[in-house]
Amino acid sequence: MNMEFLSQYKLYLDAINDALEKEFSVPDLAQKQVFEAMRYGVLGGGKRIRPVLTMAVSDMLGGSRADALRVGCAVECIHSYSLIHDDLPCMDDDDLRRGRPTCHKVFPENIALLAGDGLLNRAFELLSDKRPYERMRADAVLAVIRAVSGASGAYGMIGGQVIDLSCENRTDVTLPLLQELHAKKTGALIRVSALCGCLCAGILDETDKKYQKILQFSAKLGLAFQIKDDILDVIGKEDVIGKPVGSDAKSHKNTFVTLMGQEAAEKELQRLTEEAKAALSGMEDTAFLLSFAEYLLNREY
Amino acid sequence: MNMEFLSQYKLYLDAINDALEKEFSVPDLAQKQVFEAMRYGVLGGGKRIRPVLTMAVSDMLGGSRADALRVGCAVECIHSYSLIHDDLPCMDDDDLRRGRPTCHKVFPENIALLAGDGLLNRAFELLSDKRPYERMRADAVLAVIRAVSGASGAYGMIGGQVIDLSCENRTDVTLPLLQELHAKKTGALIRVSALCGCLCAGILDETDKKYQKILQFSAKLGLAFQIKDDILDVIGKEDVIGKPVGSDAKSHKNTFVTLMGQEAAEKELQRLTEEAKAALSGMEDTAFLLSFAEYLLNREY
Repeated sequence: MNMEFLSQYKLYLDAINDALEKEFSVPDLAQKQVFEAMRYGVLGGGKRIRPVLTMAVSDMLGGSRADALRVGCAVECIHSYSLIHDDLPCMDDDDLRRGRPTCHKVFPENIALLAGDGLLNRAFELLSDKRPYERMRADAVLAVIRAVSGASGAYGMIGGQVIDLSCENRTDVTLPLLQELHAKKTGALIRVSALCGCLCAGILDETDKKYQKILQFSAKLGLAFQIKDDILDVIGKEDVIGKPVGSDAKSHKNTFVTLMGQEAAEKELQRLTEEAKAALSGMEDTAFLLSFAEYLLNREY
Repeated sequence: MNMEFLSQYKLYLDAINDALEKEFSVPDLAQKQVFEAMRYGVLGGGKRIRPVLTMAVSDMLGGSRADALRVGCAVECIHSYSLIHDDLPCMDDDDLRRGRPTCHKVFPENIALLAGDGLLNRAFELLSDKRPYERMRADAVLAVIRAVSGASGAYGMIGGQVIDLSCENRTDVTLPLLQELHAKKTGALIRVSALCGCLCAGILDETDKKYQKILQFSAKLGLAFQIKDDILDVIGKEDVIGKPVGSDAKSHKNTFVTLMGQEAAEKELQRLTEEAKAALSGMEDTAFLLSFAEYLLNREY
């Protein structure tokens, strides 16, 4: 990986983590505990792919970095809420997330539920609060709220979570259904993160060529991201229990690896990454995004 | 109750129920079930106090009825989501709501969770989607989103839910804490419903006299509403099991009735209703709101 990319990525990461750190201080209120749980959920590290995409696209297209940071943090709030709710006992019932106990293992389950609600809600508080934007006008902020709420709602991410639940332990899941699942569950928020970069830079017209290129780029990137996750999941599980996911007699897991086979999944990952990069052809200042696609392709966690 | 008030209330109710009915049709998508659960949650009847307040205040101040209906429906989405999440096993674990099985009794628990998320999210989709407003400009819509998200979040309604959980089975809950709990848990959304009527009518300045009067009115009304609920709760329970809530050895429930005694609670309810009405003095066209306060005072469910 080239040093210029890595130092730029670190710059974005530091800005995002600092902003979230400040945004999620814990006020001394009777309901203090839910703020602690929200903070725990949002400050658990991670690659911050979504706000990085918002900032990088906005930078590339000449948007204000402060505005893009604020919008990116709002998207990260939504991502963080979805992880807390996904981990709850009635959902995936996970004890660990990024190597730490999940929110409902550290806090009571009802506080974790409400912390998730609070983070979803906070995204819209953050986007609409009275702090002035550096450059975005009210119509651009409304366009961001429209895009983000559309991507995270029942037509988008929540819809994908529902499809995911409906696929559990089914052996008849087709590749198109799996693609639809992930285009919604993880894809919608990744696409909107990048598109918000356009909105931050004043490109509000969805038929604009640049908007369309960023949409193509992020759609391919989002799917590639999920396939990579599935591949890493197999490797991780093989390390631990010596057999790939899906061979467990107790449950059938539907992933790109179990449906396509590992070799085909690797090829598809390569192909999608190339297509994502190709989608940016004809645009200027694409170096960071091109390297970011490579970075996500080669990541080891 | 005077007929003019009742026919106006019915007019609002019909408009709200029709709008929600249309808004929550079920699209033929793979995640169809979550739309069904959202529809179930939002179309369960109820007094629609919040959107009625938005519409009545907006009407009184000369706002567009179509705009106020849209904003009111968004607030009702948030109210409906909060009921679904409140009823979940890890929260109040309720089987019945308004005489019907709760959402998680009709749908799987994880679908109910996601339907709640979907409804919270939908409020912001509804406020920001591309359908043009009749009169509200982007800055007024943003002010609505700011007010609504502020009222429903961790500083508002969610905060109240957390305080409520922390008060469970405690015997040292003070009247000021109970008041804070309800000012947040039910009060915040009732206040913002009325204040959104101001925003719909173009009153965006929080120091405006009319805005301040509506704030006073709705703050008193919200607290009175909760006290009435507590009184009705005792009567309901007495009817069924012959003894008031709180005398049950299994649990200590903190309500205005258990903390103040029934007689003092009735007096406080009367006093707050009078104060709410008095807050509107000097304003024009207050007939509906004055009758609405009386209606809520005298309601039997």
